[in-house]
Amino acid sequence: MSFSSSVTSLLSISTPPAHYLAQNPLNRLSFKREDKEFLRKAFTHPTTKFLPFYKLDPAVCKNTGELHYISLADVRPYLAEHPIEKPEKDYLEAALENKKLAPVTIYLGTSSLGDSEKEWEAGNIFAIDISSLDDLHKRLGESGVVFQNFRSLLVTGTISIESFGICSFARSLLDWNNRFMYCPGCGGPQVASLAGTKRICVQSALGRADCPSKHGVNNYQYPRTDPCVIMAVLTHDKQRILLGHGMRLPPGMLTCLAGFIEPGESIEEAVRRESYEEAGITVEKVMYHSSQPWPFPQSLMIGCFGIAKEGSVISRDKDLELDAADFFTREQVREVINWDASKGDALFKLPPPTSIAYRLIRAFAYDQWDISGSTIKI
Amino acid sequence: MSFSSSVTSLLSISTPPAHYLAQNPLNRLSFKREDKEFLRKAFTHPTTKFLPFYKLDPAVCKNTGELHYISLADVRPYLAEHPIEKPEKDYLEAALENKKLAPVTIYLGTSSLGDSEKEWEAGNIFAIDISSLDDLHKRLGESGVVFQNFRSLLVTGTISIESFGICSFARSLLDWNNRFMYCPGCGGPQVASLAGTKRICVQSALGRADCPSKHGVNNYQYPRTDPCVIMAVLTHDKQRILLGHGMRLPPGMLTCLAGFIEPGESIEEAVRRESYEEAGITVEKVMYHSSQPWPFPQSLMIGCFGIAKEGSVISRDKDLELDAADFFTREQVREVINWDASKGDALFKLPPPTSIAYRLIRAFAYDQWDISGSTIKI
Repeated sequence: MSFSSSVTSLLSISTPPAHYLAQNPLNRLSFKREDKEFLRKAFTHPTTKFLPFYKLDPAVCKNTGELHYISLADVRPYLAEHPIEKPEKDYLEAALENKKLAPVTIYLGTSSLGDSEKEWEAGNIFAIDISSLDDLHKRLGESGVVFQNFRSLLVTGTISIESFGICSFARSLLDWNNRFMYCPGCGGPQVASLAGTKRICVQSALGRADCPSKHGVNNYQYPRTDPCVIMAVLTHDKQRILLGHGMRLPPGMLTCLAGFIEPGESIEEAVRRESYEEAGITVEKVMYHSSQPWPFPQSLMIGCFGIAKEGSVISRDKDLELDAADFFTREQVREVINWDASKGDALFKLPPPTSIAYRLIRAFAYDQWDISGSTIKI
Repeated sequence: MSFSSSVTSLLSISTPPAHYLAQNPLNRLSFKREDKEFLRKAFTHPTTKFLPFYKLDPAVCKNTGELHYISLADVRPYLAEHPIEKPEKDYLEAALENKKLAPVTIYLGTSSLGDSEKEWEAGNIFAIDISSLDDLHKRLGESGVVFQNFRSLLVTGTISIESFGICSFARSLLDWNNRFMYCPGCGGPQVASLAGTKRICVQSALGRADCPSKHGVNNYQYPRTDPCVIMAVLTHDKQRILLGHGMRLPPGMLTCLAGFIEPGESIEEAVRRESYEEAGITVEKVMYHSSQPWPFPQSLMIGCFGIAKEGSVISRDKDLELDAADFFTREQVREVINWDASKGDALFKLPPPTSIAYRLIRAFAYDQWDISGSTIKI
């Protein structure tokens, strides 16, 4: 699917809008991740596919431009000792002895549309980190496979929306497995468990040490997801939108304000705090719009509209994250969206159409989004 | 404020509803946390107050039932070596030498309504973990201070809504500081920095070791917030609500389904996945309602309504998290809400009115919530 056609079709999808990275077609079967017997069947089923990642970039076929999957036969030599098939205890012992461990392999789910255990055994997809598998990397390269920078794929938009969704899950989990090598509770080594969807403290699991990760409610060993707010702040009369330029953005690009939600903060509070801190704007009403996972490394972007207090003016003397910020009319934003690049530079640049920021800005410009479209009068 | 009056007033607050734990009145000044000079002024200002926590439970005055703050004079003996006042480097060296470190002290923000640096210096609040300060704990106890289980405070509802908001932030950060003692990137010791709002890898900060936490985008050292969905799933005709009983709930209590959002998943996808996995229900339309931080330990509950596909029926054979689930009419839910306890047991019990689950259920029962109340036709 070409970029423009996929954008067009996406924009026509039902309210709330369907975002890139938020269209994973797989059934994750998260409740089967502890079922070792099921995982083994899924792993070895003839229909199972493996999506290789090299340094967090997915395999893409040079010819088709789509994701490139490989088979169990391709990866088996590297996964002979994998705990999906072997006892996990052996794997843990090997980790303590500093033996080379099998590459991180993540269970992503099944594409089967069925609703029974038997049907779920087919159509499964795993992601595999081949960063350390030089020979496989070379062989794939020779057969026309490239490992494309995933962030740049979001700009070029050459893979399908469904493929973006699959990569979004896989990339975040691979990254998390790479980052959280040690147990934050005791400092000992951690390894992947439940096919890459949990990490466990090796010494504690083997009974060699006590670790707080073994006790009570713990989030040490589960994937991290960092919720962020991203907001289109409108003037009190809703006629202009606040756009800013952060230090790290490409020159000339303006976009929505955004920031991490802090512990003990609601979405609405975070929108108000970030608007105040970054641009000095007091936001009153906050309205949720939609959400988009952002796998760089594992954020969840929560898109909102915020309405500024009457008379609230921009000041950038607090947070100092923005080096420019201003309010723009619908007409100005539309002109940028429809700008003919051959005429030179537009008033400013926008983030790519695959981003929730673009969708919020576009929704403002075209008066397109009306939250009452998702009204429920119960 | 008594419990019943505070609930009543809360329920009348504007749409989207204001939740317990989501009403922190402090200006967090998150952009001042790296400004050591400002932190020092805030720390030593005569108007500054310290909120003691003992094993994550806040200090409450037995007489008033409200939070009990103490002064800098009370805590100074324990904070003589605190990095807010002393060079952080000394603190890091002490951590490597296993010297006793000052108790974790967290900057929560200012209650000052001003908008200038000078004004922010007044009215600041810090939380201090006195779990290891036996003498201070004893002295406070003798003066009529109790350390009340924070979860039970949510049921009794004796502190003000604003105090809940302050505790929600403080408790999550104290817990996080306690849990993440070691660097997940290199396994070395971590200590609190930026007045408890960041943790840093000691060896890496002192240049004694290289650690991935020093490079690129990293979330090793920032507070963790775990986003969850909690949803009122309605039948296709919106006349009945799905309520379930999880294994760990008190007997007879029914509530909304909920679950953690996974990496690479939108809010809407998580609502659909959890509804399918826990109750076998296919959810079509998903609508955001409101959000509530849940500091046990550091969750963000994202409340939604979901509309089931026509004819979708309950099955609990997948996730096995629920041991009961059924659909209930508005009349049935209202009867439970208004049940006269002297008549014996109601049809079922509901979660406490301080929870977002209760608010979602009540919104259904009284047809109270109409998302178009927060409509923005831009």
